Amino acid sequence: LQERSWLSPWMLPKTANSILRAIGIVAFANSPLSGLFILAGMFVGNLNVGWACLLAGVIGVIFAKLLNQPEDLLGDGVVVFNGILVACISVAVFPSLSGHQVDVAFWGVLAVMLVVTAYIDKGLNALMAPSKLPALSIPFNIAAALLLLSLRGSAGMTGTHTPEEASISSEDSEGNGTLILSDGNGTLTELDGNVTEVDWLKVMEGSVLAAGQIYGVGTIDSSILVLLGFLVFSPLLTTFFLLGGIIGSVLGAVVSVAPYGEVYAGLWGYNAMLTAGGIVYFLHVTPSSTLAAVVGATLAALTQAASLHVFSAMTVPVLSYPFNVATLLILAISTVPNPPLLWVGNKTFP
Amino acid sequence: LQERSWLSPWMLPKTANSILRAIGIVAFANSPLSGLFILAGMFVGNLNVGWACLLAGVIGVIFAKLLNQPEDLLGDGVVVFNGILVACISVAVFPSLSGHQVDVAFWGVLAVMLVVTAYIDKGLNALMAPSKLPALSIPFNIAAALLLLSLRGSAGMTGTHTPEEASISSEDSEGNGTLILSDGNGTLTELDGNVTEVDWLKVMEGSVLAAGQIYGVGTIDSSILVLLGFLVFSPLLTTFFLLGGIIGSVLGAVVSVAPYGEVYAGLWGYNAMLTAGGIVYFLHVTPSSTLAAVVGATLAALTQAASLHVFSAMTVPVLSYPFNVATLLILAISTVPNPPLLWVGNKTFP
Amino acid sequence: LQERSWLSPWMLPKTANSILRAIGIVAFANSPLSGLFILAGMFVGNLNVGWACLLAGVIGVIFAKLLNQPEDLLGDGVVVFNGILVACISVAVFPSLSGHQVDVAFWGVLAVMLVVTAYIDKGLNALMAPSKLPALSIPFNIAAALLLLSLRGSAGMTGTHTPEEASISSEDSEGNGTLILSDGNGTLTELDGNVTEVDWLKVMEGSVLAAGQIYGVGTIDSSILVLLGFLVFSPLLTTFFLLGGIIGSVLGAVVSVAPYGEVYAGLWGYNAMLTAGGIVYFLHVTPSSTLAAVVGATLAALTQAASLHVFSAMTVPVLSYPFNVATLLILAISTVPNPPLLWVGNKTFP
Repeated sequence: LQERSWLSPWMLPKTANSILRAIGIVAFANSPLSGLFILAGMFVGNLNVGWACLLAGVIGVIFAKLLNQPEDLLGDGVVVFNGILVACISVAVFPSLSGHQVDVAFWGVLAVMLVVTAYIDKGLNALMAPSKLPALSIPFNIAAALLLLSLRGSAGMTGTHTPEEASISSEDSEGNGTLILSDGNGTLTELDGNVTEVDWLKVMEGSVLAAGQIYGVGTIDSSILVLLGFLVFSPLLTTFFLLGGIIGSVLGAVVSVAPYGEVYAGLWGYNAMLTAGGIVYFLHVTPSSTLAAVVGATLAALTQAASLHVFSAMTVPVLSYPFNVATLLILAISTVPNPPLLWVGNKTFP
Repeated sequence: LQERSWLSPWMLPKTANSILRAIGIVAFANSPLSGLFILAGMFVGNLNVGWACLLAGVIGVIFAKLLNQPEDLLGDGVVVFNGILVACISVAVFPSLSGHQVDVAFWGVLAVMLVVTAYIDKGLNALMAPSKLPALSIPFNIAAALLLLSLRGSAGMTGTHTPEEASISSEDSEGNGTLILSDGNGTLTELDGNVTEVDWLKVMEGSVLAAGQIYGVGTIDSSILVLLGFLVFSPLLTTFFLLGGIIGSVLGAVVSVAPYGEVYAGLWGYNAMLTAGGIVYFLHVTPSSTLAAVVGATLAALTQAASLHVFSAMTVPVLSYPFNVATLLILAISTVPNPPLLWVGNKTFP
Repeated sequence: LQERSWLSPWMLPKTANSILRAIGIVAFANSPLSGLFILAGMFVGNLNVGWACLLAGVIGVIFAKLLNQPEDLLGDGVVVFNGILVACISVAVFPSLSGHQVDVAFWGVLAVMLVVTAYIDKGLNALMAPSKLPALSIPFNIAAALLLLSLRGSAGMTGTHTPEEASISSEDSEGNGTLILSDGNGTLTELDGNVTEVDWLKVMEGSVLAAGQIYGVGTIDSSILVLLGFLVFSPLLTTFFLLGGIIGSVLGAVVSVAPYGEVYAGLWGYNAMLTAGGIVYFLHVTPSSTLAAVVGATLAALTQAASLHVFSAMTVPVLSYPFNVATLLILAISTVPNPPLLWVGNKTFP
């Protein structure tokens, strides 16, 4: 497929392939089939997220060509996935952060931001090239934070904000997403009242929901579709994803206070999940890299706990910033001479 | 001129040349004539800013010699301009931030800071050398933020500050600078009252005033003198400066809320202006680098909108930090193999 | 000693040597004897700090072996000292920040964090390898900030905090540490009442106490023991340490407001102290490197003054972050061609 020209009837399937692989590569599942499953999960969870994903994919492919991105990276979707994440997460988070619905103006701003994201992606990868480490989803984090903070200004909010109203509503409140910060005293807070015990069954549910949260859709149906997508690509990777999700959710329950709405919704799991998965994706699976994955997931959860204070003051979600920090630090270990962890040369997965 | 020894009567003209070029190079206008125009603009706008600029120039040249800075960089003023920016902006901003006048103690602290700036400049350039990208005015941003935050402590302010009193007075309130944060309810706020419409003519005026704001002087006379200085160096560059200023000011008007005092004063324009200019300065002017300049200016304005929340919580202006981030990201694109944007080897300007 | 195998009866002395050298290397005093003096100082100042230091040493050595750290670095203690700092400072700071005593749960969390620290250390050093600069105690700063911020969440604090209760109690209030943030109006504040004059004798005392503060113990006995440890290693280095401490304390007194409890306790001196010492440790002692040490100490104190606002909003101490920033910037100067400052090849100290 990669050898076909872009100026031929092959354009359409090539674009579709790039977009679907880009969806999968967010979670290291580089296969069009995984992408299809995950896209289905998005549409099931939140229609807008699905459409935003497709919009981002098309803009991403166009600007990847304009910016001379290498053909093989484009075919793998590596240069498109940050835009997709920007679109998905912005659409999922925007309504609750601003109190507005997703309207025409928002789609316009989003399209401009997707173009800017393509430039950030290319620039950051050039900056990181000497370190031989992947840029992961750092461009997404920069672009999404810029977008959300800019829009915040136009909504009339300035300076720091004591996040008194930032109680997190649970995923079952409206069925269309969990990253929602409810305004005022949400129903959840009232229902749970003075329940301060951790419901460990719900923490486990949160570990599964974390899979959907990667893409900004936090319903149980979507998460299962996303996990199916992972499973099609690699059962081993999926195991590590779940392991990471459990570590993150449990640590989240330990360091946060009641009510544990965020933990149950999977918002504490997805960073640790991606970190554990990312480490075994890039490194050979050995006892010491398994230990590294566990340490990495712990580091991601702690980073999330630590940076939450800064991010909540700005009323912006932590996005996947803890995942990027934790994964880069662990992967950097494998770049030294005589490393305890070995880089995978040719990635084929069981 | 460059071949003359420093230990000769040529010392004075060599120093003057370095300082004047340093003033121009802030905005990429590397010519003593441009520097002269801009210096005149400073003295017209705010006497203190002009004197501070000369003080910074002299200290900068002395320490550049002490630190073995290369002769050609010194001749071009590249190693001096960060100190000049520190001096100009500190003097312009200090009275309004602290409520004090510029007194003897402040000049003493400023002189110490200028010495420290010379070391920061040298150190940061060494750190960035492997990336083959210019350090731009990052040393200025570090040094000025350090200075202003330190002085803030001695003024008795600690922690974050809900910036309720941080309404920006317009440039016509006192005629001597626009970076002034007025205390309490400024007259501007009262005059504009419940006017929430954007006055687009004033936004265009802001795009011009942005030229003066680069140097901390925001009157219309100063800005025109500064723009004349740019024009003497390169009409093409000036065109891109104005284009960037317009993009920044318009986006500023879109993302901020009434009253639009900051937009009208040019405070939203100067980062986008410098970014657009910087990109065409370092890259060949082609359709794709023009597009890159537009994207860069947009990115700078968005970065300013996003970081404003953090900076205002610390009651420190955003300085030129958005310009540095945006320009570096775009320029980094040109360092990859087979780049879509070409670096300019020999800089001669039409 | 270095040639002996780890799987022999030599294990114990080898471990002891690594730990003692690691204690000394925190302040560049690479000698077991210095480490012994300093360890004695810790136990004198605060029993818990001493035990935490030993625990960190043992965990550090084990994971250094697991992560294939080079034998010579392990012998010098370079790979262990960040863990030791994490343990010492966390134990010293935790009770006052959280209002809890150091209990079993805390020791468990600390042990997990020490393992994570070993990975951060290895990863960060790999990331910084291309710049040929030392990572100094940056891993400690990352790990300790993560630990303290995470624990903060579980104590029910979120978002920014106007630090109204963050008055610093003096070192004589309880005799076991000075990093204590007293709750409410401490006795010190009341005693000093409306005294706003700076007591310069106490500022000098603070310059000495800074030595103990490096390790989180701020009593005069401990500080003298620590300084003795430095003196055993190198009188010249100790001179620069004291010079740095004085610069830091005096600048601290200038930029902060009454009461000057923090200045008198040495909390303003230790960053400048480490910076001045670090610069002469890595560079040849010449007039220009002495000037660089003075500038570096000034830069460290200013960085501390500037970042205090951010850190206090998060109720986290500034740790040794100003020292790292200042030292790296100055050291970077020596990496350029034809540098004004020369790197020391073979480190032997008078």
